[in-house]
Formats: sequence, structure tokens, C-alpha cells
Amino acid sequence: MNHLLLKNVRPLEGDTVDVLAVDGTIQKVAAGISSPGPDTAVIEGENRILVPGLVDCHTHIDKTFWGLPWHRHQAGPRLIDRIENERRLRREMNLSPEISSENQVRQAIRMGTTHIRTHVDVDTEIGLRHLEGVQATRERFKNQITIQTVAFPQSGMLIRPGTAQLLEEAVKAGADLIGGIDPSSMDRDPAGHLDTIFDIADRHAVGVDIHVHEHGMLGGFAIELIAERTKALGFQGKVNISHAFCLGMVDEEYLNQLVDLLLENSISIMSHAPGYIAFPPIKRLFQAGVVLCSGSDGIRDSWGPYGNADMLERAMLLGYRSNYRKDEDLEMCLEIATFGGARVMGTKLYGLEVGCRADFVLLSGETRTEAIVSRGPRKLVVKNGLIVARDGDCLI
Amino acid sequence: MNHLLLKNVRPLEGDTVDVLAVDGTIQKVAAGISSPGPDTAVIEGENRILVPGLVDCHTHIDKTFWGLPWHRHQAGPRLIDRIENERRLRREMNLSPEISSENQVRQAIRMGTTHIRTHVDVDTEIGLRHLEGVQATRERFKNQITIQTVAFPQSGMLIRPGTAQLLEEAVKAGADLIGGIDPSSMDRDPAGHLDTIFDIADRHAVGVDIHVHEHGMLGGFAIELIAERTKALGFQGKVNISHAFCLGMVDEEYLNQLVDLLLENSISIMSHAPGYIAFPPIKRLFQAGVVLCSGSDGIRDSWGPYGNADMLERAMLLGYRSNYRKDEDLEMCLEIATFGGARVMGTKLYGLEVGCRADFVLLSGETRTEAIVSRGPRKLVVKNGLIVARDGDCLI
Repeated sequence: MNHLLLKNVRPLEGDTVDVLAVDGTIQKVAAGISSPGPDTAVIEGENRILVPGLVDCHTHIDKTFWGLPWHRHQAGPRLIDRIENERRLRREMNLSPEISSENQVRQAIRMGTTHIRTHVDVDTEIGLRHLEGVQATRERFKNQITIQTVAFPQSGMLIRPGTAQLLEEAVKAGADLIGGIDPSSMDRDPAGHLDTIFDIADRHAVGVDIHVHEHGMLGGFAIELIAERTKALGFQGKVNISHAFCLGMVDEEYLNQLVDLLLENSISIMSHAPGYIAFPPIKRLFQAGVVLCSGSDGIRDSWGPYGNADMLERAMLLGYRSNYRKDEDLEMCLEIATFGGARVMGTKLYGLEVGCRADFVLLSGETRTEAIVSRGPRKLVVKNGLIVARDGDCLI
Repeated sequence: MNHLLLKNVRPLEGDTVDVLAVDGTIQKVAAGISSPGPDTAVIEGENRILVPGLVDCHTHIDKTFWGLPWHRHQAGPRLIDRIENERRLRREMNLSPEISSENQVRQAIRMGTTHIRTHVDVDTEIGLRHLEGVQATRERFKNQITIQTVAFPQSGMLIRPGTAQLLEEAVKAGADLIGGIDPSSMDRDPAGHLDTIFDIADRHAVGVDIHVHEHGMLGGFAIELIAERTKALGFQGKVNISHAFCLGMVDEEYLNQLVDLLLENSISIMSHAPGYIAFPPIKRLFQAGVVLCSGSDGIRDSWGPYGNADMLERAMLLGYRSNYRKDEDLEMCLEIATFGGARVMGTKLYGLEVGCRADFVLLSGETRTEAIVSRGPRKLVVKNGLIVARDGDCLI
């Protein structure tokens, strides 16, 4: 049996206790637990804050340049410039999705992430090659991190015939969800785009996670169409909308209508706190009961140089961009980057109670807010009861 | 004589050279410099990028909570709520401006900052106490960091009779510049506010640095009035406007008029890349020739929990908020956080050429952009030819 005893930690900033994990499950949380035997790994927690493993619920690990020689960014300003630049670079740089995903996974583990949902490009040029690379990484690190994959038509679906069939192949090959992107502005046929995706999801009993970058009313219309299909197919709780910038753009009356649709259909929302554009009103949605998650989105790739796979930094950016200054608001941002993401991923036994999986992180800082704004090295990262990172170093 | 030989560094990402500093001045920059003698400190630069010391050109070191027990933030949302909350906390917490400023200075040095311009609160309740505290810190660290002080009427000037006299006292007591704040919305008399400040500046031959948070046309009007006084008094090159959110709000035609006023009067602009509000169009101003600087603004104080005195993070935020993805744009942000700030502060002999002061930082990262987006520990920070921080630790 694998025993881990963590002494003197503060779960979610609560009173100081010890935590005993046995075979990857939290078995006891109490003050003054004595070591069950000489083969127990005993870690002194120094009164640090313990939180469940961070959840990066939207990223693109198949195509990061992390760990490669620096690449000067050169794409033009439009979405289509970036997509075409990416396709060109993919050919020229001969990137390996397996190596890219492994590099990002190691960085994420350093930063305390125990769960990742990653969108994986599928198109008529690369077929399922990216999915295969990510699946190899997932298999290799299956004890160190949980990875969910979304088959993602980055380059469009209906506008590139053959893509929908490939997406279905990807799902058959093990992708956990099916993705979509901008049904009107990219694919030019919002009903057709969404019908195709939901049909594949329905036939293969997988969830849906759709990128909606569309602004204002056009984005709102996409949400309406997604909600209609979620309801018709009984997909409540299985659908996530990523980005949804429009929720930060529409007027209050229409926002209320959209929030009702999200609640009625248990549709969750992902925001990574974009730097330059409106984004969903986090606290408004959170207080209404919408399930929220966050993610790194692309880090250091052909789309831009930013990001480091640190979900504490993402919580900081959510707060900074939203002008949240109170501790309770930043604690909400951390909750989104932990419990919110876990709900969206459908993670069972997530948390710090007895019976939960032993997936947790020991933070630097007196309070959760200090941990978020300071973002010191993670003192300890545990996955399945095993230490995977310590003092900021990935141990695997 | 104090000799420092830095081997194998890349000044501003250029070719690898050695840099020899003697008595605080860069004496030689060339490949293959041999050590002038046994008392020379020789540092291996490992081919890292060398940049001049970072310049934090707008902060509030007199009132940070950095280094103190965590304080839960509780101010209301309005500017006036925050100012009143600050005044209350100042009394209740019995903060020491000397300790606060010392704590922030040590953190800034760790992060590679060699020059700080700090606004220091002056009002009828605290008089010059904050200035005295900051001056004590400045004296104590005079060889380790350059500090400029702005006498700053945070709580208003005309609306609190006696404040203008105290500001003048502060200038007589050694404040390097005189500050101001929102001449219309806070002080209710824009012409009166600015006349008072410029009169003090003129009689004591000090520069001016004014906080303008005012939105849209009201902020633009403040800039017009500041430009008129700058011209009338021949103050070109001595006036900085901090925040100037309005430059990111007005229409293109009026923006062009304001930019012309800034250029004609050599008025510089400071932006710290606020998270939640419009801010100046950085590249537009930079390309027009407006001198730009950046700063931490308040870090971890009664205004909010954010910030860590890291000017590389500030360069990242400037880029992130502006949607700059190209390396050349992030290099501009770093230039603002170094050369721009040095120009605004009137720093002589700043740079990496022979004859410049030996104030520089050795960064982690293959390129300047990587250094900005990664923000690893600063490998070496040198001020006046002396090592003040190494591997992220402040040595003083």
C-alpha cells in the first residue's frame, strides 16, 4: 500500500490538520494523525494552504512551442491570419504533438495542475495525428495527470469537407468530447454546424465543448442554438461553451435571457480572461449558479507568446480583468480554477474530504489570495497519492 | 577600485560580449575581456540577455502592505470609497511608511528594478510623515536603488485646505516633483488645481507628475489644461501624466489633437496597464514619438491585492492588455519599462554603452519576449557596479 501523510496543512485556508492518503484516496483528515508505519512518506506542510489539484479546463497541448527553441511570432491580426499561420508553421516546423503535449504537461504538473481538458486539432490535413500524439502522452502520464480530449475543428468543419467525418473518427478513436468553433462566422451555417456536432455527440454519447468567439448578438445567437440542441437531446450537464465573449458584450436584458438558457440547460462557461476583449461577467454568472471553469488556452504557440500553464496566474488574470479586489472574489476565481473545472470535467471524488482522490497542491502564501497574487513555486503537488512535483520542480 | 567583469552576456539580445564595470561605470564592452586583476568580481553570464535596470516609474512605496501580515481587502467600489478606506486603515493599522517603503524596495531590487519614481501621500492628516519615511529609505538604499519622490495629494488638494501649503513644504523638504490628481472630478476646479501645482513647480524648479483617471472628454480636458500650462511656463520635458485612461476612450480625431499636444509640449505618459478599464493606445503613442513609461502603481495595499513590483510582469500586462503578440511589440513594452522610464526620470548615463552607469539586469530566457512572458528569477541585478540581487534573492 502507498501511504502519504501530510502534516500541518490548512485545507482551503481552514484550521491546521494532517491529511493521510492511502493508495491514492484521502483516508483521514484530522489533527495529530500518527504515521501508520515506516513505509509512509511523511511531509511537513509548514502550515501551508492545501487546495485540490488545479484544473486547466481549456488548453491546446497538442501545439504548444513550450520547450522548443524560441519562435518569433509573425501572424497577422485576424483570426483567419492566425489559423493560416498555424497551418503553415505546422508544416514548416514539423512539430510533434506528442512532444509538445508532453512538454506542456510537465510544466502544468510543476504548476499544480492535476486535470487538463485539451482541445486537439482535427482537420483534413493532419487527420487524427494530433489526437494520437496527445493520447500517447495521456497514456504515458496516466498516473500523474488526468487528461480529457476534445476533438476540435480548429480550421472549420463544414467549410472543409471531410472534417466532420474525421471528428467522428476521432471520437471513435477515444476523444472524450466533440468540439466546435464559431458556427456562424467561421462555418457560415450555424444550424448545420451545431446539428452535425450534436448528432455525433448523441450517437457516441460524448459531451460537447464549443469555442464561441463571436461577438454580441451573433455570439448570443450561437448560445441560443446550442441551448436548443442541449434541451432537445437531453444533454444537460454535458455541454460547455468556451470563451463566450458575447456574454460581456450584450445588454443586461439579453444577458438575463442567455443566463436563463445556460441555467435551464446546465451549460457551463469557460473563460481564460482574455487581455484585450470583453469576456463573461464572472461574478454575475457565478452568483446566478452557472458552472464556470477556466483554462490556459493556447500557451506559447503560433497564436501568441503568452502563458505558462499556471492556473493560479489564470485566477489572478480573471480577477485583474474583472476589477475584483476583495479576497472573497479572488477566492471565487480559485474555486473556478479548481472545483468549477472539476465539475465541468465530470471529475468524481474531487476535493479534500475523506474518500476523495488524493489530488492536491500545497501553496505558498498566508491566504488563498496571497497565493494567487504571488504565485510562488508550488511546494508540493500530489496526484493519486503520489508526489509529482516539489518546490516548483516536476519530478516525473 | 571596484571592478565587475560580466562574461558572455547578450546586451539587449545582441551578440555575446563581456562587460567590464569599474567604479560603477561601464568601461568596456567587447568579446574576450580579460580580468584586470585578482580583486575583480568575475561573473559568468551563460549567454543570458543583459538589459539596463528596470524602471518602475509610478508606484506608491509609502503605503504597501508588502511584508506585513495579510490584510483582507474590504474597500467599496468607488474611488472615494478606496481613498476613505485607505485613510481609515492608515490610522487603524498604524503603518510605517519607512518599513513599507523598505519592504517594497527590497522586492523591487529582487525583480531587477534599479530606478523608482514613487508618489508619496501628503495631506493634512499625515503632513510630511510619509515623505520622511520614504526619504529615510532612500538614504538607506542610496547606493542600491535610485528613488525619485513626487509629493502627491492623494486625498485631494483644494478640497482639503492646507494641502497645497503642505505640498510646497514637501518640495522644500526634498520631494523631487509635485503631483496632482483628477483636477475636475476630485478637486472640482481644474484650472485652480493645475495653477496651484504648476506655480509651486515653477517657483521651486521641480517637475510635475499628475494622476489623471478622468474618463473621456473630461480627461482630455485635463490634458489640454496641463499642456497649456506646460507651454506657458516652458516646462517641456518636465511633465508626466499618469494613467490617462481617456487616451484609450476618445475618438480618433480628438486623440490626434491630444497626441499633438503631448508631442508639442514633450509631455510623457505613464500606463500600468489597468485590468478593467480602457488605457492609452501604447503602440500608437510610441510610434508617434510620445515618451512612455510604466510602473507598478500600488502593490498589495488598501487599494487592492495585486502586484509584485516586477516590471517584466508589467511589460507582459501592457502587451496582454493591448493584444500585442509579436515579439517586436513586446520588445517595445520592455523598452518602455527601461529606456522610457529612464527618460521620464531624467536619468543620465542610462544604458549599456561604455560610459553608462553600471545598472543592469541579467534575465532568464532565450529572447526578451521569453523573459517577459516567463519572468523567471533575475539571475543578477547590478546597481552602481555592485551586485544587489542574485538568482532572485535580494542581497542587501
